[in-house]
Amino acid sequence: MGDERQEYTVTFLPTGRTSRVRAGTELLKAARKAGLHVNASCGGAGVCGKCRVVVEQGRVLGGKSEKIPAASYEQGYRQACSARVCEDVSVRIPEESSRRGGLGTAVPQRNHARRHVFDMEELKQEGGWFPSVEKVCIELSPPAGHDNRADAGRLLQGLSAQYNRKCELKSLVFLRKLGKALRRDNFQATATLEVPVNQGARYRLLDIQPGYQCHRNFGLAFDIGTTTVYGVLIDLETGKFLAEASCYNPQMSYGEDVISRIIHAEKPEGLDVMQNLVIEAMNRLITEMLAKVQTPTALPDRLSGRMLDRLDQLPVARDEINSVSIAGNTTMTHLLLHLDPSSIRRAPYVPTSTFFPSFRAREIGLDLSDTCASLVYPSISSYVGGDIVAGVMASGMYRSEQLTLFIDVGTNAEIVIGNRDWLACAACSAGPAFEGGGITHGIRAVEGAISDFSLNPETLEPMNITEGGKAPIGICGSGLLIIVATLFEHGVLNQSGKFNPLDHPRIRKGRSGQEYVLAWQDECAADHDIVINEVDIENFIRAKGAIFAGITTVLQQVGLQVSDLERIILAGGFGSYIDLDSAMSVGLLPEVDPDKILYLGNGSLAGSWMCELSNHIRRDVVEAVRKMTGFELSEVPGFKDQYMASMFLPHTDLGLFPGIAQRVRENKKE
Amino acid sequence: MGDERQEYTVTFLPTGRTSRVRAGTELLKAARKAGLHVNASCGGAGVCGKCRVVVEQGRVLGGKSEKIPAASYEQGYRQACSARVCEDVSVRIPEESSRRGGLGTAVPQRNHARRHVFDMEELKQEGGWFPSVEKVCIELSPPAGHDNRADAGRLLQGLSAQYNRKCELKSLVFLRKLGKALRRDNFQATATLEVPVNQGARYRLLDIQPGYQCHRNFGLAFDIGTTTVYGVLIDLETGKFLAEASCYNPQMSYGEDVISRIIHAEKPEGLDVMQNLVIEAMNRLITEMLAKVQTPTALPDRLSGRMLDRLDQLPVARDEINSVSIAGNTTMTHLLLHLDPSSIRRAPYVPTSTFFPSFRAREIGLDLSDTCASLVYPSISSYVGGDIVAGVMASGMYRSEQLTLFIDVGTNAEIVIGNRDWLACAACSAGPAFEGGGITHGIRAVEGAISDFSLNPETLEPMNITEGGKAPIGICGSGLLIIVATLFEHGVLNQSGKFNPLDHPRIRKGRSGQEYVLAWQDECAADHDIVINEVDIENFIRAKGAIFAGITTVLQQVGLQVSDLERIILAGGFGSYIDLDSAMSVGLLPEVDPDKILYLGNGSLAGSWMCELSNHIRRDVVEAVRKMTGFELSEVPGFKDQYMASMFLPHTDLGLFPGIAQRVRENKKE
Repeated sequence: MGDERQEYTVTFLPTGRTSRVRAGTELLKAARKAGLHVNASCGGAGVCGKCRVVVEQGRVLGGKSEKIPAASYEQGYRQACSARVCEDVSVRIPEESSRRGGLGTAVPQRNHARRHVFDMEELKQEGGWFPSVEKVCIELSPPAGHDNRADAGRLLQGLSAQYNRKCELKSLVFLRKLGKALRRDNFQATATLEVPVNQGARYRLLDIQPGYQCHRNFGLAFDIGTTTVYGVLIDLETGKFLAEASCYNPQMSYGEDVISRIIHAEKPEGLDVMQNLVIEAMNRLITEMLAKVQTPTALPDRLSGRMLDRLDQLPVARDEINSVSIAGNTTMTHLLLHLDPSSIRRAPYVPTSTFFPSFRAREIGLDLSDTCASLVYPSISSYVGGDIVAGVMASGMYRSEQLTLFIDVGTNAEIVIGNRDWLACAACSAGPAFEGGGITHGIRAVEGAISDFSLNPETLEPMNITEGGKAPIGICGSGLLIIVATLFEHGVLNQSGKFNPLDHPRIRKGRSGQEYVLAWQDECAADHDIVINEVDIENFIRAKGAIFAGITTVLQQVGLQVSDLERIILAGGFGSYIDLDSAMSVGLLPEVDPDKILYLGNGSLAGSWMCELSNHIRRDVVEAVRKMTGFELSEVPGFKDQYMASMFLPHTDLGLFPGIAQRVRENKKE
Repeated sequence: MGDERQEYTVTFLPTGRTSRVRAGTELLKAARKAGLHVNASCGGAGVCGKCRVVVEQGRVLGGKSEKIPAASYEQGYRQACSARVCEDVSVRIPEESSRRGGLGTAVPQRNHARRHVFDMEELKQEGGWFPSVEKVCIELSPPAGHDNRADAGRLLQGLSAQYNRKCELKSLVFLRKLGKALRRDNFQATATLEVPVNQGARYRLLDIQPGYQCHRNFGLAFDIGTTTVYGVLIDLETGKFLAEASCYNPQMSYGEDVISRIIHAEKPEGLDVMQNLVIEAMNRLITEMLAKVQTPTALPDRLSGRMLDRLDQLPVARDEINSVSIAGNTTMTHLLLHLDPSSIRRAPYVPTSTFFPSFRAREIGLDLSDTCASLVYPSISSYVGGDIVAGVMASGMYRSEQLTLFIDVGTNAEIVIGNRDWLACAACSAGPAFEGGGITHGIRAVEGAISDFSLNPETLEPMNITEGGKAPIGICGSGLLIIVATLFEHGVLNQSGKFNPLDHPRIRKGRSGQEYVLAWQDECAADHDIVINEVDIENFIRAKGAIFAGITTVLQQVGLQVSDLERIILAGGFGSYIDLDSAMSVGLLPEVDPDKILYLGNGSLAGSWMCELSNHIRRDVVEAVRKMTGFELSEVPGFKDQYMASMFLPHTDLGLFPGIAQRVRENKKE
């Protein structure tokens, strides 16, 4: 198959549309990318036999099936769902696979958000690269008769004279190491300093090592998710990423959501168990990352410019990790720090604290040096946690002039709206629809999950695209969004999310109201037809309605409108793969120029990471949190109305969605 | 014997001199107090039979001995050393017991320093009563739908609104207790706050308890001496002393001086052993003090004025101790905090640190609550330690206009000279003479130690007064001082400390040069005569010379003279019982008006105690230490000359001691 990174051009006839795809891409996906609909319900299993195309020039790999007679195969017929690109190729979409005889049907391009790229070089240029811990090599004059200052005073004065670092010494642990560390290499030593968050404040002495070790400075960033724990190991002297690791949050065995975790934590020793589980997971990840990485080579001392001996490529040692930044939602943070979470789940939903003092990593049981400093992101409220604050910090919206909507969709959706002058936030009880919850055939984005879809508007035949090109087994969140949007745009669904009375074999009455059959049982890897029904759609609308109502309610509270939004930043797994046009069609996202939408990825991890690289973040977060007004939506009078108005596709007020209103009108005319 | 606190008048004939003494006082001591010499060498054992007196009016208890025939006893003859006062009495000193026939010989009054009294009421009036930890009762509005601030924020805002206390929260331990503590009594709780040292700085939240407990606030002060550990338990709400306890420093089993302790600490695990020993001793003292004390009754809340329910008289609980202040010399401090002391004993005598961060008492193993804060006094150098700094703070010299000499005599003597504008200090290698070391028959001030002495100038017969009125077994520090001063003043010794050629049965050649027999073997509880010889006197002169040379050297360094001194403050056990006139006679102390001399007692303990009662001390000590210049005497060029000049009685320069010079001249004339 050649180099998989190689890209080739696929030309589709008769339209002449082309797409550039990587070697190995199925022709079906290449067509989708070219904006062409090809009937296909089995998702690539090759059993429906509907997606036949003819290769007219060039070669493809595979694409054979029993639905293609040998003679047709010889003529170049292939199943688009299983034929893979291996060179430039021209392919004709025959009439029966398409909409109007021989013309590939145009379908909307999928519009994913641009990735918000974290640019280390830019950070450095802006002076933002400023780790919270630094190491400096210091050369002190040894004590003599006329100069018998104590070790500590000598060091403090040396740091002031040689590096202009005014330091404070608050740790007995440090003092205990000092005498021997200074004397081993004749008063040449390396000090580890915690950089003050506020300008003019004193540096804090964390650690002291004999000799020159100032390029050995490492940090960890963690995202403690309800489902997954992610860690990243970073070289704080270069800013380089060294290793990452992740695992399920082992608290999962006590329930998937935060409420079940809290209930368990309220039992005798329950909080101990919860804390231990996550700490053990973090310790395992640390060990895994340390095993993965070899040390970078020796470097000049960043502060003195002194060139240091090139050291052997030793692995990073556990006690060379000097700093840990952690972000998680409010409950995860409480469990991590062994804080009583019980009032989080009871009205009026009060956490023990929304800010957390810095501490030694050892204090909570992390298997790191006893001088390693640790910081946990502050929260806003019980349901807008440090993960969201971290995302806001990583997104930079707190220092932008642009009015930005930050949105992190998971089981709940949290939204933050604002700019450098003010920030407002809320948690929306979206429910688990976007993760497949409450949807008859909803699943996570595993192999066989329908994740993309289009509809032949003539025949209402589907084009199902599945994860991994496998026979469909269900619908994942991004697929659900596109399916609902597509069915609505083509008049299959009305504005209330109900099926219009159409006479079609795929539209029928099921156990939960009317339903559309996406794939028949014999095209599936399931023992039933895969459908989407009115109850599914209602649940979906509830979820998207909660989010949109949250957005409009918060905007209303601050006297603004959806049209004022200048930028949208999507965080969380869901944000990476949602189709923006569909999201606007159904009224999940406000209608804006898709170029204004950015995808941040795991905002919580990005925020912790930033916190390791840039001490400015630690200063700014205090200010950002102070600025951030949290709204408890259920307590805001106008919310219920907004929610009711959002329980439509896309909304009762089509004036909010002029583009979609236009498209729906056009589709109706056709 | 009646009430021992009752005082009676003893009238001595023929002089008619009187003294007021407590019931039970021996007539010998009453005569001494009246300024009368009575020959007496056995110190009260009743074996020398020299101290016979005649009771002429009134009654005494005891005073019988085999040296008094029955007939004489009937006539009122008694041994003055064992006859005790029990009512007003007239006593004649017969010729043979005195100097000139029938006339009681006048001897110098003993002149002890006035006690520097720590006045709590004065401290309160000056606004200095300001404990470093305070407890405040707070009543918060419970969370509600419209007010779901987190517990921590609610508390911080309440403290600010109700008490104008801007607080910071730096402890996970605190946060862990917060939720439950607030909810038990419907958001009425008691917060323990660490008061900031600097004005305008934030209070720090240490602890939180449910309900109103704000009058339950206790502190501990410790002096960690090389020999003895002292502790005091204090009620921080009233300033009242509650209990004290002391014990030998168990490190004693590894040597009596700091050098042997350091040597042991340098061995593997040696530092652990040294730290554990002193921590265990402190823990035992804490337990002992807690057992001794019952709680004071309930009190109004000092800050809110709110009257609190009178609580039952519960004992003070260990976890109600919120603060511990500790002072000790530099080595004791290093061992206590597990800091490497090894360079303290090696030139150029460098400690690990002279200042010590505050810490949780638990961190060093004290069996107290995990929120209890602890502070250790800073040192100046390896040999001017936190005990001296504490004494300086307790003495108040750092804020006085008067030029003050502070002197603490133990194995070493440390001196501090200065006033509120500047401070200079030095350690003088006095050696152990004042503790009985290096003196042939030197002992500590135990029972039978000769602690006071006078001489019949005619007969050169001694009047030995011993501790507890027991037969003499040796000479303690205060006795040694008086003996040397008396022998010198009466021309028995010359200015070089050598015996003048006198023909007297008590003056003879011994193994260490000439010697004076204080008590013959048959008058002693020892198997030898008790003597003082020329080597003893040389050692004594060396010790007092080192101190005086230290004083003059430091004064010289700052351009001042002995005559500029306006006040002398004596600290340490020795200071409490030395005779000031004798100390000036021998040239141990500069010649000043004895009224200008104050006795502080245990300055180290007093300083820690002050530190518990007055947070201002914690602020001021930083400034005081900054002001304090330490002189390493051996490095100061002029010191050797000063030392040589001080190796005389009282000094080569008699101009420094005009009063003594006059007295010596007068005695010679007689």
